[in-house]
Amino acid sequence: MTQAPDTQPAGRGTQRIAILGLGLIGGSIGMAAKARAGAHVSGYDTDPRALEQALALGAIDRGAEDLKDALSGAEVAFVATPLGVLERTVQDALAAAGEDCVLSDVGSTKRMLTHACADQRFVGGHPLTGAQTAGVGNSSAGLFDGARWYLTPGTGTSGVLYERLHRLLVSLGAQPMAIEADTHDRLMACVSHLPHVLANLLTGQAAGLIDSDGQLPSVGPSFRDATRVAGANTGIWRDIYLSNAQELIAGIDEFSRRLGEVREMLENGDGAAIADWNEHARTDHRSLLEAGLLGGPVSQLDVSVPNRPGVVAEIALELGRSAVNIVDMTLSPSPDNSQGVVTLWIAGEQSQRARELIAALDFPVSRA
Amino acid sequence: MTQAPDTQPAGRGTQRIAILGLGLIGGSIGMAAKARAGAHVSGYDTDPRALEQALALGAIDRGAEDLKDALSGAEVAFVATPLGVLERTVQDALAAAGEDCVLSDVGSTKRMLTHACADQRFVGGHPLTGAQTAGVGNSSAGLFDGARWYLTPGTGTSGVLYERLHRLLVSLGAQPMAIEADTHDRLMACVSHLPHVLANLLTGQAAGLIDSDGQLPSVGPSFRDATRVAGANTGIWRDIYLSNAQELIAGIDEFSRRLGEVREMLENGDGAAIADWNEHARTDHRSLLEAGLLGGPVSQLDVSVPNRPGVVAEIALELGRSAVNIVDMTLSPSPDNSQGVVTLWIAGEQSQRARELIAALDFPVSRA
Repeated sequence: MTQAPDTQPAGRGTQRIAILGLGLIGGSIGMAAKARAGAHVSGYDTDPRALEQALALGAIDRGAEDLKDALSGAEVAFVATPLGVLERTVQDALAAAGEDCVLSDVGSTKRMLTHACADQRFVGGHPLTGAQTAGVGNSSAGLFDGARWYLTPGTGTSGVLYERLHRLLVSLGAQPMAIEADTHDRLMACVSHLPHVLANLLTGQAAGLIDSDGQLPSVGPSFRDATRVAGANTGIWRDIYLSNAQELIAGIDEFSRRLGEVREMLENGDGAAIADWNEHARTDHRSLLEAGLLGGPVSQLDVSVPNRPGVVAEIALELGRSAVNIVDMTLSPSPDNSQGVVTLWIAGEQSQRARELIAALDFPVSRA
Repeated sequence: MTQAPDTQPAGRGTQRIAILGLGLIGGSIGMAAKARAGAHVSGYDTDPRALEQALALGAIDRGAEDLKDALSGAEVAFVATPLGVLERTVQDALAAAGEDCVLSDVGSTKRMLTHACADQRFVGGHPLTGAQTAGVGNSSAGLFDGARWYLTPGTGTSGVLYERLHRLLVSLGAQPMAIEADTHDRLMACVSHLPHVLANLLTGQAAGLIDSDGQLPSVGPSFRDATRVAGANTGIWRDIYLSNAQELIAGIDEFSRRLGEVREMLENGDGAAIADWNEHARTDHRSLLEAGLLGGPVSQLDVSVPNRPGVVAEIALELGRSAVNIVDMTLSPSPDNSQGVVTLWIAGEQSQRARELIAALDFPVSRA
């Protein structure tokens, strides 16, 4: 393929971003990075039509000849390929990228990838966009507005590089949060992968009933809600299920156990137990609703840290573990580069908690 | 309690309706019957506050002293009490109601009730409103607009009385459809009760994860959809679960079997089987979506029938079994009352199918 012309050469001080894989997510990262962060975006895709479309839509400034060409000079790179070729592409990208390039991905599962790609330049990532569409043609600069973007730094991840990635994601409109890769996959098994499995199963069961009774059940909203995601894109979801099989099986076993308990209550006609079980679900549902509502003003915390790999990740993970939302962060190295100050902006009433958590890690912390 | 004054005495030719149990459904039936059918509505509730509120809101014309008083002179009566006292109230109402009163209910399960209350005046009913609120204060004349309203006539149900009920429900804005009580409960187990169970279980499992990991999973739309109905009103749902325990257990067993199959595919890392399973769900989902879309113009069919109990129910059940929607119906007896003509209005392209089904029952049928 002939190299496409650069629609907007990068000036001095302009951040250079590479995107490998130009689908909905890759295209949207490009659009948001250009529109929100004024970045210069190089893109590459094995499908030349996707690359041409991304250029035509203005999702990228430059169409690269290959992966290495796309990564040339990049300070931040995203691998946004399908899950099936993700690990290989991340490995190739790590081999081709410069020493000062932070590399992330957007895959839906993180454990296998994070373990396979331990490199101080790599930070696993997973934006929760909930988009039902696919393809670079549906890309939008606003796709990540307000969206949680999980990051799974390893213990060796460079603090400088992590901070660069975090800042860029915030400027894209997202809300990055650090999380251990194993925890991420366990949570996703419960809140995303298992719900998709249940939707598929319920859909099949209802379709089977129609076949046997020859009658369409007029369905209420509970069924429509429960099956809305049934039969989601097979290529994508086969790979998600396979790459998180271990945690998903654990989730299924736990679910089966709970289902068996309800079956027993029904078999026994135990109204008191059923009422108690339903009340628990009511309480749990309210807790989940309440826990999802963050708000209030933002507080700034300055944390003094030694400038060694893993420090920023350590802080981000500690706060993530307590569900403290880091609205934004910056890292300012000292002149001799031996230490630095991490400045964190924390949402609302969580700042006191964040301060205590960081202090417990033995880093000096002050409120600005 | 003092009998409340009649806000609008019934004139000649005005249909008299009784409502026993004044909650959201009972109140809405009253409002719709007054506004849409010009009916005179008597109401009764064991809670005097509900009765006063229903009068104040204009949901009923007259507050009755007791069940017998409410039923006095009624041509149509609805029992709209909680499921827990439904059967007893229907039995009491059948004992108190006149010979020419059709009596129905609005309970969410039908098998036990229909078997217990075999009477030519009784037709089990279940409107699917999907309302999330409760209480007479939330009543609305438009609650049933376009809503499926299942009817479960017994083999001995009077055709004249069934037709009267059907016509009234259509005038309330609903879409009545006859269905066998057993089939109704089996379908509801799959499309309503099981989804509620799954929502409760998933909610509890996610809440448990937060407890153990101390971290809030940022949830995507699949989880929100799958758990939206979790912890629905305990009093109502305990009774629904108990009254449909048999079919719900069967649904759970079928679901467990299907869940086990997926678990095995995951354990084997069988990508082809997972892809195939997901594609099936995709096809099933599309089938369900398509089957739910009825439309087109309405055709009129005239059916000559002997005037004996069960005939109208037989026709309605046969059409319901094939998912043919009866938009409206009337029954015109011959002068000597020995036979009659049932006129059916059938939605869109279903009229030919309806004609064939009725002809197969050996009733002369013609298209008007």
